[in-house]
Amino acid sequence: MLEPAIKDLASNGKNFAMFGVHLPNGQIANHVMWVDADDEHVLINTEIHRDKFKAIEHDPNVTVTIWKADNPYAYAEVRGVVTDTVRGPEARQHIDELSERYMGHPYGSQIESERVIVKIRPDRQRSRNL
Amino acid sequence: MLEPAIKDLASNGKNFAMFGVHLPNGQIANHVMWVDADDEHVLINTEIHRDKFKAIEHDPNVTVTIWKADNPYAYAEVRGVVTDTVRGPEARQHIDELSERYMGHPYGSQIESERVIVKIRPDRQRSRNL
Repeated sequence: MLEPAIKDLASNGKNFAMFGVHLPNGQIANHVMWVDADDEHVLINTEIHRDKFKAIEHDPNVTVTIWKADNPYAYAEVRGVVTDTVRGPEARQHIDELSERYMGHPYGSQIESERVIVKIRPDRQRSRNL
Repeated sequence: MLEPAIKDLASNGKNFAMFGVHLPNGQIANHVMWVDADDEHVLINTEIHRDKFKAIEHDPNVTVTIWKADNPYAYAEVRGVVTDTVRGPEARQHIDELSERYMGHPYGSQIESERVIVKIRPDRQRSRNL
């Protein structure tokens, strides 16, 4: 289960996440992303052609660190495993919901391949100053 | 060499970095940190007893992603290798300089072991909206 304070941080407001994944070449990719959560998972929405999505098929151990938009000293680090991915209309609708939350309008960028929701089950959760 | 716009982002203003390292257990540690740079390296200042420092002795491949304090859509990702570490008075003075920059006063927290500057030579640099 995701700690309630971390679920709150991830699913409300314009708080951003850094999504760290293991690339096959031994490097870490670490990108700024929108973020969401349900009771059990941190949720990241990406597209299936992206290196970060290919990377989690190679190694599902990922780390998402979410900070408060107005205070980077307040943050939560979730180390976990990608246990599920959801494509199709649900992922398409989810990126619109995220865009509404962060930008105030539906997702306007070109979709190059297919949106996918990445569900991350926490193995270790830690927060500071939440 | 570090790209000038990335050096600028890392060494001026109150821009924070996410410091991603490979832990020996296969997880990624991903923490919010102060950051600095010289012409050749991204610089992170930590202490020698911390897991993140032990981690880079195990695997020197790290990723530092720095975002603009007032705009997280503007960020730089530097994937690189820890090529040098500096302890002693230089590292102690450097954390005071970082504290002056971010907090407006010398470093006030207890030093538990010893400060160390971690020098990261970029292998790949990428920025968005800088």
